[in-house]
Amino acid sequence: MILSALFTAVGINLGLCILFLVLYSILRNLPGNARVYAPRLVAEGEAQQRASFDIERLVPSAGWVRRAWKLSEDELLSVSGLDAVIFMRIFVFNLKVFSIAGAIGIFILLPINYEGDQLHSIDFGNLPNESLDKFTISNVKNGSNWLWAHFSAAYVMTAVVCYLLYSEYEYVSSKRLAYFDASKPQPHHFTVLVRGIPRCTAGNFSGSVESFFSEIHSSTYLTHIMVRQTSKLRRLVVDAENMYRRLTRLKSQQDAQQRNMCLPGFLGLFRQDVNSVDKYEKKLEDLEENLRIEQSDVSLIGQEVPAAFVCFRSRYSAAMAIHIQQSVNPIQWVTEQAPEPRDVYWPFFSTSFLRRWISKLVVFIASVVLTIIFLIPVAFVQGLANLDKLEILFPFLTSILTITFVSQVITGYLPSLILHLFLTLVPPVMKVFSTMQGYISHSEIEKSACSKMILFTIWNAFFAIVLSGSVASQAEIFLDPKHIPERLAVAVPAQATFFITYVMTSGWTNLSSEVTRMKPLVGDFIERHFSKCCGGEFTVPSLPYHRQIPAILFFGLLGIAYFLLAPLILPFLMVYFFLGFIVYRNQILNVYVPKYETAGKFWPMVHNSSIFALVLMQLIAIGIFGLKKLPTASTLTVPLPVLTLLFNEYCRKRFLPNFYVYSAESLIKKDREEQNDPAMPGFLSNLASAYRDPAMEPVRRTEEAEQGLSTPFLSSGGA
Amino acid sequence: MILSALFTAVGINLGLCILFLVLYSILRNLPGNARVYAPRLVAEGEAQQRASFDIERLVPSAGWVRRAWKLSEDELLSVSGLDAVIFMRIFVFNLKVFSIAGAIGIFILLPINYEGDQLHSIDFGNLPNESLDKFTISNVKNGSNWLWAHFSAAYVMTAVVCYLLYSEYEYVSSKRLAYFDASKPQPHHFTVLVRGIPRCTAGNFSGSVESFFSEIHSSTYLTHIMVRQTSKLRRLVVDAENMYRRLTRLKSQQDAQQRNMCLPGFLGLFRQDVNSVDKYEKKLEDLEENLRIEQSDVSLIGQEVPAAFVCFRSRYSAAMAIHIQQSVNPIQWVTEQAPEPRDVYWPFFSTSFLRRWISKLVVFIASVVLTIIFLIPVAFVQGLANLDKLEILFPFLTSILTITFVSQVITGYLPSLILHLFLTLVPPVMKVFSTMQGYISHSEIEKSACSKMILFTIWNAFFAIVLSGSVASQAEIFLDPKHIPERLAVAVPAQATFFITYVMTSGWTNLSSEVTRMKPLVGDFIERHFSKCCGGEFTVPSLPYHRQIPAILFFGLLGIAYFLLAPLILPFLMVYFFLGFIVYRNQILNVYVPKYETAGKFWPMVHNSSIFALVLMQLIAIGIFGLKKLPTASTLTVPLPVLTLLFNEYCRKRFLPNFYVYSAESLIKKDREEQNDPAMPGFLSNLASAYRDPAMEPVRRTEEAEQGLSTPFLSSGGA
Repeated sequence: MILSALFTAVGINLGLCILFLVLYSILRNLPGNARVYAPRLVAEGEAQQRASFDIERLVPSAGWVRRAWKLSEDELLSVSGLDAVIFMRIFVFNLKVFSIAGAIGIFILLPINYEGDQLHSIDFGNLPNESLDKFTISNVKNGSNWLWAHFSAAYVMTAVVCYLLYSEYEYVSSKRLAYFDASKPQPHHFTVLVRGIPRCTAGNFSGSVESFFSEIHSSTYLTHIMVRQTSKLRRLVVDAENMYRRLTRLKSQQDAQQRNMCLPGFLGLFRQDVNSVDKYEKKLEDLEENLRIEQSDVSLIGQEVPAAFVCFRSRYSAAMAIHIQQSVNPIQWVTEQAPEPRDVYWPFFSTSFLRRWISKLVVFIASVVLTIIFLIPVAFVQGLANLDKLEILFPFLTSILTITFVSQVITGYLPSLILHLFLTLVPPVMKVFSTMQGYISHSEIEKSACSKMILFTIWNAFFAIVLSGSVASQAEIFLDPKHIPERLAVAVPAQATFFITYVMTSGWTNLSSEVTRMKPLVGDFIERHFSKCCGGEFTVPSLPYHRQIPAILFFGLLGIAYFLLAPLILPFLMVYFFLGFIVYRNQILNVYVPKYETAGKFWPMVHNSSIFALVLMQLIAIGIFGLKKLPTASTLTVPLPVLTLLFNEYCRKRFLPNFYVYSAESLIKKDREEQNDPAMPGFLSNLASAYRDPAMEPVRRTEEAEQGLSTPFLSSGGA
Repeated sequence: MILSALFTAVGINLGLCILFLVLYSILRNLPGNARVYAPRLVAEGEAQQRASFDIERLVPSAGWVRRAWKLSEDELLSVSGLDAVIFMRIFVFNLKVFSIAGAIGIFILLPINYEGDQLHSIDFGNLPNESLDKFTISNVKNGSNWLWAHFSAAYVMTAVVCYLLYSEYEYVSSKRLAYFDASKPQPHHFTVLVRGIPRCTAGNFSGSVESFFSEIHSSTYLTHIMVRQTSKLRRLVVDAENMYRRLTRLKSQQDAQQRNMCLPGFLGLFRQDVNSVDKYEKKLEDLEENLRIEQSDVSLIGQEVPAAFVCFRSRYSAAMAIHIQQSVNPIQWVTEQAPEPRDVYWPFFSTSFLRRWISKLVVFIASVVLTIIFLIPVAFVQGLANLDKLEILFPFLTSILTITFVSQVITGYLPSLILHLFLTLVPPVMKVFSTMQGYISHSEIEKSACSKMILFTIWNAFFAIVLSGSVASQAEIFLDPKHIPERLAVAVPAQATFFITYVMTSGWTNLSSEVTRMKPLVGDFIERHFSKCCGGEFTVPSLPYHRQIPAILFFGLLGIAYFLLAPLILPFLMVYFFLGFIVYRNQILNVYVPKYETAGKFWPMVHNSSIFALVLMQLIAIGIFGLKKLPTASTLTVPLPVLTLLFNEYCRKRFLPNFYVYSAESLIKKDREEQNDPAMPGFLSNLASAYRDPAMEPVRRTEEAEQGLSTPFLSSGGA
C-alpha cells in the first residue's frame, strides 16, 4: 500500500466520521429523538420532550462535546456508577500510554525508519507514491546502529506502560474500596447464595436451611429465602406481558381513531378494534388468573430448588459463611457471594445440573467451531489486502483493479470494513454461550462473554491475520516456542498497513455509529410511523461491556504491538482514543443505564490484556533485532518479557484479591459504623424480600390496563 | 529376555530376600541391636536392653511377622499417628487392586496371550527358552477377536480401580475427620501464622500485631508471639551442642579408663584427657555464657522478623482469620494455618525474601538439570537391557556375553539394580531443593519433595526408559498429542521384561534393605566399637515419606500400566505389596517415630498418581488396539480416559477440600464441646509458649555436663 492509498482511506473515514458527528448534533436536537439519544434522561424524567419544531435545532452544535469533556469523574460516578467510571479509565489509560508512545514513535522512530534505505523505492522523493513500508522498521538498514534507538524505545515503553498499569490498578482498586466504604447497606453485602442443600428429615429444603444456619451461625443468621423452580411461571409472565403490550397498543390506536373520527370509513374497523380489545382483555385476565393460581400453588406445594439466599445480620458474618467451608461434605452447603438482586439471572436456577454440565461441553466445542469458521472471512480479508495475490487467482479482475481509486479503496478500506462487520456479529453469540454456561448473574455472564471475546479477537483478528494459513499452521507456531519471536518478526510487520486502515475503518466507524445509534434510530422511526404505537414502553439500554471492552482493548494491543514496527499507526490510535473518550462519556451521560454494579471487576481484564500486548511487543522486538542482524540487542531484550511477567505476578498478588473479596478490616469497619444506624433494623427486616424471584411478584397488569395507564415500563431484565 | 533368564533373576532376588529376612530375624534379637532395630521402643523406654547373650536368639523366628500382621489399624493409630495409618493404606489399596487385576491377568489374559501365535518362537514347546514376549499382548494375532477380552479387561480394571479409589478416598477423609473430632486441643488449631506485618508507629512489629488483632478480632484474639531472627543464635546452639557431645564422649572415655586402671601406660594419656576435659568444659561454659548474652540481647533489642504466631480463643475464630483477607492491602497481614510447633522449620524465617525468591528460581533450574543429567545412567541401563545393541557397539564383549549365566545376569539383574541405585540418590537432593523453596514446616518440605520425586520417577524411570532417545525426542511426543497412544503402544510393551525384573531388584531389594537397616546397623557398629562412646545420644528416625511414597506409587503405576500388556508382572507386584505391608508395619511399630502429623495430607498424591496410571493404561490400550488392527475397540476405549478424568474431577470436588481445611461445622462442634472443659483456660494460657523458637530456649547443658548425666537426647530436628 502506498501513502496516497492511505490518504484515500483517511479521507473516506474522516469524511464519514465528521458526517456522522454532524448528523448526531442535528438529530439529537430533533423532537421525538430523545427516546433514541437520551433514553436515560427520558426514563429519569429529566428530558423535556419538546414537541415544537424549531429551525435553530437544525444547526449542528458542539455543546454535547463540551458537556462530555467537562464532566468530572465524581459526577460520572453519581450518574452511572463505578463500572462506567472504570470503563472510562480504559480510555484515560490508553491516552496516557499513546501520548508518550506517540511522541517517541513519531519524533524519534519514524524519522529513523524513513531515513534508512533498506527498501529501495521506485521513484525516490515522490512522497505520495512512497510505500508505507518506508515508514516501518523494515526500512532500517540491517545491523545499523540506529536500531539501538528502537531497543531503547522498547525499554522505555515497557517502563512507561508498567508504571501506568501499576498506578491505574492502584487507582481503580482504591476507587473500588472507596466505593464500598461509601456505599449504603446493600442486600448483596449481607446475603450469601447457598447451593447443594441436602433435604431435611421433613423432606423440604427450607427447614434444612433454617436448622443448619441457626445451629452453626446462631448469633448472626437472620433469615433465608428459598429459590423456586419458576420456568413455567416465567413463561406465563412473559405471555401476560406480551398480551398487555398488545392491548396497550390497540387501545392507543383506538384513542387515535377516536380523535380522527372525521373519517367514517374507519368506523367498521373501529368496531372491530373494540371487539378485539375486549377479547384481549378477557385473555389477559384469564392469563393472570392462571398466573395467580400457579403462584399460590407453588408456594403451597413448594417446587423448591436446593438453593437459597441466606441473609446475615452483618457483612462480616456473611463473608465468614462465604469463605469457610460450611459442611463436612464439601459439595453440600456450597456458599458464594450473592449477586445484586437486580443482577440475578433467574432462569439459571430452573435448569438441571446435568443440562448445565452438558451445556458447558457444548459451549466449549461451539467456541472452537466458531473460531475455525471465522477463518473464512479472515482469509477473504487477507486476499483483498494482498491484492497482487488475488490478481493471480482471478486474472479477470486485473482490468478493474488497475483503476487507481478502485484498487486504493479495495486495499485500503474494504478488507478492514469486512473484518469489522464480521467481528460485530460475534459478541451476541459469545453472550449466548456464556449464558448457557450457568452463571448466576448478568454481570458474570457479561464478564465471561467479555473474556471470551478478548481471546477471540486477539486470536482471529490478530494472529489469524498475521499468521496467514490454515489453523494447523497457526497452531504449529505455538508448538515450537523457540521460534515464536522470529516467526512473529517476519509476519507482524507485513500486516502493518492493514492494521493502520483497520484502526480507521473499524475504530472510527465504531465510534461514529455508536454516537449516532443508527439501529435504534431506525427502529424507533419505524415503530413511531408504522406500528402506530406512540408513547408506551421502551427499554433503556445498558452499556454492552462484552462488546465494547474487547474492541477497545484490541486497539490498545495493536498500538503497543506496532509501536516499534510501524509508529505511523499511533496518531490514528490517539484520534480513536480521544474520540472514544468524548463519545462514551456522552453516551454514558445520555443513553446507558447500568443494569448492575460490579464495582470495577472488569479492570483486571484490561490489565491482563495490556500485559499480553507488552510481552507480544517484546517478543516481536527480540525477533526483529535478530532478523536485522543485531543479535546483541536481541539478547539484551530477553530480560524484558521476564521482568514484565514478574511485574504482572506482583500486581496479581498486590491488587487482584481486592477485586474478588473485601477484607475483614473494611467489612468490620462498615459493620461498626452501622451498628447504631436507626435505619438498619428496617433494612434487615426487608432483606429477604429483595431476593424474590420476579416471576413470583403479584401481577397488576389488568388493573393498569383497565385504567388505561401507559407508564414507561422498564424491562425486568429476563434473559 | 527368555523365561530362564527371568528365573535366574527371580532366583537371585528371592534368595537375597530370604537371606535378608533371616538375617533380620537373627540380628534383631542380638543384644545391643535394639538401638538399630527398635529405636522407637528404646526412646520410649519400652525395650529392655538385655545384655546377656543367649544361643536361642540365633534361631531365626517369624514372631515379628505375626505381630506385624495382627496389628489392628486402631493400634497403629495410637502408636504412630494417622500419617502412618494412611501410609499403610497405600499397600492395602494396591493389594486390593492387584488381587483383582492379578486374577484377571493371570487366569484370563495370560493364557490368551500365550495361545496367540503372532510371534514365532524358535523352538516351540521348550518353555524355559520361550521369550517373555510370548506372554505379552504382542503375541496375540492382529485383528483377533480374543483382543475383546483385553478390551473388557480395560473397562473392568478402570471400574475396579475407580471404585477402590473412591472408597479409599472416602475412608481416608473420614479417618481424617474422625481424627480431628477425637483430637485434644492442639496449639496449631488455635494459631495462625501471620506474615507481611507492617511496622507500627513505634517502629516495632509486635505493637502492630497487638493493635491490629485486638481491633479487628477484639473478642477472639488471645495473644501472639513474634518470630525473631535467630540464625546467629542457632549457630551458637549447634556449637554448644557439638561441644557438649564431645565432652560427654571424653567423660565416658575417662570412666572407661578409670575402670581399666590396671594398664599403667595409659596414665599419661589419662592425665592429658583430664586436661582436655577441663579445657572443653571451660569452652562450653564460655559458649553458653555467650548464648545467654545473645538471647537476652535479642529480646532487649528485638531483631524481629515481620512474622508472628497469633493465637485465638477458639478454632473457629482462628479459621476466620485464615480464610478471610485481613487487610485492605492483600500483601500485608497474610495469614495461614500455623504448623504444629514441632513441625515448624525455623531457619526459614531467618532467610530474606529476596534469597527465597532466587532460591525458587535456582531450584527450578536445578530440577531440570538433574532430570537431564539423570538420562546418562538411564541410557546406560537401556544399553544393558538391550544387550544386542551393546554387542554391536563393543564387539569385544561378545565372547563374555555368550556365556549364558553372565548374559542372563547382565540382562536380567544388573540394569534394574543400577537404575535403582541411582534413583536412591535422588530423594535427599529433592528434599534439599524443597527446603530451599521456603516452606515453613518440615511436613510441607517433605510433601513438596514427595511430589517432586513422583514426577521425577515417572519421568525418568518410566518415560525415559520407554521412549529411548534424547530429551528432545522425548519431549516431541508430548508436542504431538494425537500420536501419543500410538507411540506409547509401540514403546511400552518393548520394556515389559525390564520392568518385571525392576520390580524384583528394586522393589524386593528395597524392602529387605529397609527391614535389615544395613546402613544404620553398620553405623551403630562402628560407633560402638571404634568411637568408644557407648550409651549417649542417638536420634530416632522418622519415616522418610518423600523417599518411600514415590517408590511405592511407581510400582502401582507399573502394575496398572502393564496390566493389559504383560500380566506376568502382576504376581511379582503382589509379592512386593504383601511383603511391603508386613515390613512397613513392623518398621512403624519398632523403628520410626513421627516427626509431625499431617493427618493424611499425603493421600491426594496417591489418588492422583493412580488416576495418572489409569489414564496411561487407557491411552496405551487405545494405541495397542489400533496397532493390533482392531480399530473398533480402539475407538470404543476413547470414552474411558474421559470418564476417568471426570471421575477424578468429581473426587477433587468431593474430597480434596477436606484435606486442606476443616469445615465450620466441625470447628464449631469442637469449640462447643470444649467450652466447659476445665482444662481449657490452662491450655490457652500456655498457647504462646508452644511456638517459642528452640534457639531461644534457655541452655542447661553445662549443669547436665557437670552432673555427668547422659540422658538419651533426641535431635531437635534442625534442618
